[in-house]
Amino acid sequence: MKAEIIAVGTELLLGQVVNTNATFLSEKLADAGIEVYYHTVVGDNPRRLEQLLMEAQKRSDLIVLCGGLGPTDDDLTKDTVAAHIDHLLIQDEQALDRLHDFFAFSKNQMTENNLRQTLMIEGGIAVQNPTGLAVGTLITVEETTYLLLPGPPNELKPMFTQHALPLLEELFPQKEQLISRVLRFYGIGESQLVTELKELIDTQTNPTIAPYAKPNEVTLRLTAKVVDQAQGKQLLDILEAQVMTQVGEYFYGYGDDNSLVKVTVEALKEHGKTVSAAESLTAGLFQSTLGDVAGVSEVFKGGFVTYSAQTKQEFLGIDQKLLEKEGVVSKACAIAMAEQARNRSGADFAVSFTGVAGPGELEGQSAGTVWIGLAEKGQPAVAECYHFNRERNYIRQSAVMKGLDLIRRAVTKKK
Amino acid sequence: MKAEIIAVGTELLLGQVVNTNATFLSEKLADAGIEVYYHTVVGDNPRRLEQLLMEAQKRSDLIVLCGGLGPTDDDLTKDTVAAHIDHLLIQDEQALDRLHDFFAFSKNQMTENNLRQTLMIEGGIAVQNPTGLAVGTLITVEETTYLLLPGPPNELKPMFTQHALPLLEELFPQKEQLISRVLRFYGIGESQLVTELKELIDTQTNPTIAPYAKPNEVTLRLTAKVVDQAQGKQLLDILEAQVMTQVGEYFYGYGDDNSLVKVTVEALKEHGKTVSAAESLTAGLFQSTLGDVAGVSEVFKGGFVTYSAQTKQEFLGIDQKLLEKEGVVSKACAIAMAEQARNRSGADFAVSFTGVAGPGELEGQSAGTVWIGLAEKGQPAVAECYHFNRERNYIRQSAVMKGLDLIRRAVTKKK
Repeated sequence: MKAEIIAVGTELLLGQVVNTNATFLSEKLADAGIEVYYHTVVGDNPRRLEQLLMEAQKRSDLIVLCGGLGPTDDDLTKDTVAAHIDHLLIQDEQALDRLHDFFAFSKNQMTENNLRQTLMIEGGIAVQNPTGLAVGTLITVEETTYLLLPGPPNELKPMFTQHALPLLEELFPQKEQLISRVLRFYGIGESQLVTELKELIDTQTNPTIAPYAKPNEVTLRLTAKVVDQAQGKQLLDILEAQVMTQVGEYFYGYGDDNSLVKVTVEALKEHGKTVSAAESLTAGLFQSTLGDVAGVSEVFKGGFVTYSAQTKQEFLGIDQKLLEKEGVVSKACAIAMAEQARNRSGADFAVSFTGVAGPGELEGQSAGTVWIGLAEKGQPAVAECYHFNRERNYIRQSAVMKGLDLIRRAVTKKK
Repeated sequence: MKAEIIAVGTELLLGQVVNTNATFLSEKLADAGIEVYYHTVVGDNPRRLEQLLMEAQKRSDLIVLCGGLGPTDDDLTKDTVAAHIDHLLIQDEQALDRLHDFFAFSKNQMTENNLRQTLMIEGGIAVQNPTGLAVGTLITVEETTYLLLPGPPNELKPMFTQHALPLLEELFPQKEQLISRVLRFYGIGESQLVTELKELIDTQTNPTIAPYAKPNEVTLRLTAKVVDQAQGKQLLDILEAQVMTQVGEYFYGYGDDNSLVKVTVEALKEHGKTVSAAESLTAGLFQSTLGDVAGVSEVFKGGFVTYSAQTKQEFLGIDQKLLEKEGVVSKACAIAMAEQARNRSGADFAVSFTGVAGPGELEGQSAGTVWIGLAEKGQPAVAECYHFNRERNYIRQSAVMKGLDLIRRAVTKKK
């Protein structure tokens, strides 16, 4: 079972866009037991794409194409593949309905070229696009399977995961299956995690352990190659228990489609608690991150962005003398902000952020110095100073993650 | 002059690493007037790499290889290319000296396999590695030029920029250079932009026009192939004027490294105006987006996140009766929020967001329905209803972009 990925788009060859689609698809296909042997990028040029298809057809069982399904004249992937296998393009009714709905709802005018997006290759299976208008196609001709996906990653990913992958798994069933489990950690770096688990990682062959560093967190993917689910679950349970013995204190949740904010919101819901915030350097990023989670209104009612000393006084009633004496980048200010945000919102918890986002210094303190305060009903508020590295927006992001972790631990009483 | 880039590394095919090297090299080569026609990724497999070299040699004048110059057994690029062109590998003395210095300085023991890194292809030019130990090679055989670069981006980039690029520019002097200009548009979709500019795009050959859709905006890259800068500037000026006649009302700024929020903050600074916000469904995303821009404290002092009806009353003093009568997803609520945010912050402008982020309905209104209010000192506040498509966080993002555009237009008095 050999697969290859062809990305179509001159913008990739000009270095304007990074080919993250190939990376995403490779990882997902590997999980499904489908091995990828080549990635290729070719420009919006039908002749060169056709040459590549001739070559790919000889060496691969599955050819995944991304890009070139859009409305404009340089979107030629569908036409070229259809010509290559000598099929026609036909209108997909479901995609057409979605197109009309889209323009009716947004009240924008629909231009004629949008109809191109609703075309699929005759004889194939239409692959619907949950976040865009261009429909994909899956079609097998003479032992070669072609999968056509859109170029924008925010369309490609949901289309692949929700619609294309289940079709591929049906088409190419694997005797041995890969069963994996993702463990998520916050508060430990990748190199430290790998050092702690070195012996386990070096000696482990089935299941395997693959660490992966993401901004401000690390995940471990445990993957077992097994004949049946039950055996896989058992192997993963044993390995997980070993991992937890060593680094369990940093573990916060399971799964690819999970995050520290989701787990934090879930914990608040479970315990029937609410949260508020007062944000200086993060400027609303903590609250906005809460807002990413559907249904957060149950536990989050609102809060404050106090970016200047003046708004700290006016919105939160913090004493001007305190700010003058202690400075805004101070324990006293962080505590006052958290306390006042909690009082004024009536929430069970409030977190506060005040510090130096950079690039320059503030009050003689270097970029990355951040005080985070935590107020809990019936308890005196506390605050700690953290030092985050790298550039401005990484510092703000790091502060928000630490704030989420503080709330999560406070709600679940895990100190 | 046709070039292609071959990245060697199984980790790329497993989706563990993104091929950013191809993007970097493509951009630099384009700037040097060398056009890249293909990117390919192949695993650490000599047979498949050799097949690819056979193919590449037929279609390209320059083949840039990255990866596989390291000390371990799966680093086979040098051996495979040398065999392909029937040359030997020889030790590069300069690289050998650097290797010995490195281990003497670090006091680590040098393992034998490190010597592999100092090998180059006989008859070629050694390309030194300023930040690593593996030496590269540039060699021309029978009208095909091969450039071998290391895989780690922190080694590839300095080696290419400092040593390889000057050699290439000498080898392939360009009579013509590419000069490009990026125009950024907000408020018009890619399909509509392309339709408006259809005649211009279809008839234009030098400069060319390349549209590119990003979330909530579209960019146009105008690229002229010219002998000198002045001629390029003139051609781009003429084309830009033609583009502006048709779609100038949506234009907001120039350049790859630009954004609507940067332009908005710049406009506020220029006019000496400040902005505040009251956010419901966006939950702080507007203010946090302002916070992304270094130096925003000059024009942004703070604002409110009022996610519930209760916080709209308590933080902003909005009349409970108004909320009960009109609902929170209403013109009256958006106007009151913007007015109160402006009053309480003392800012010159304030924007408000209230609507339905989804996934479900709110007050009988569907997800994507958003009222955005705008208050300006000395004028009655106004509000408009917008309908944004797609999922929750895209709706919130779309609302924020519209809010930024409203502020930008209000500040610069472009209605």
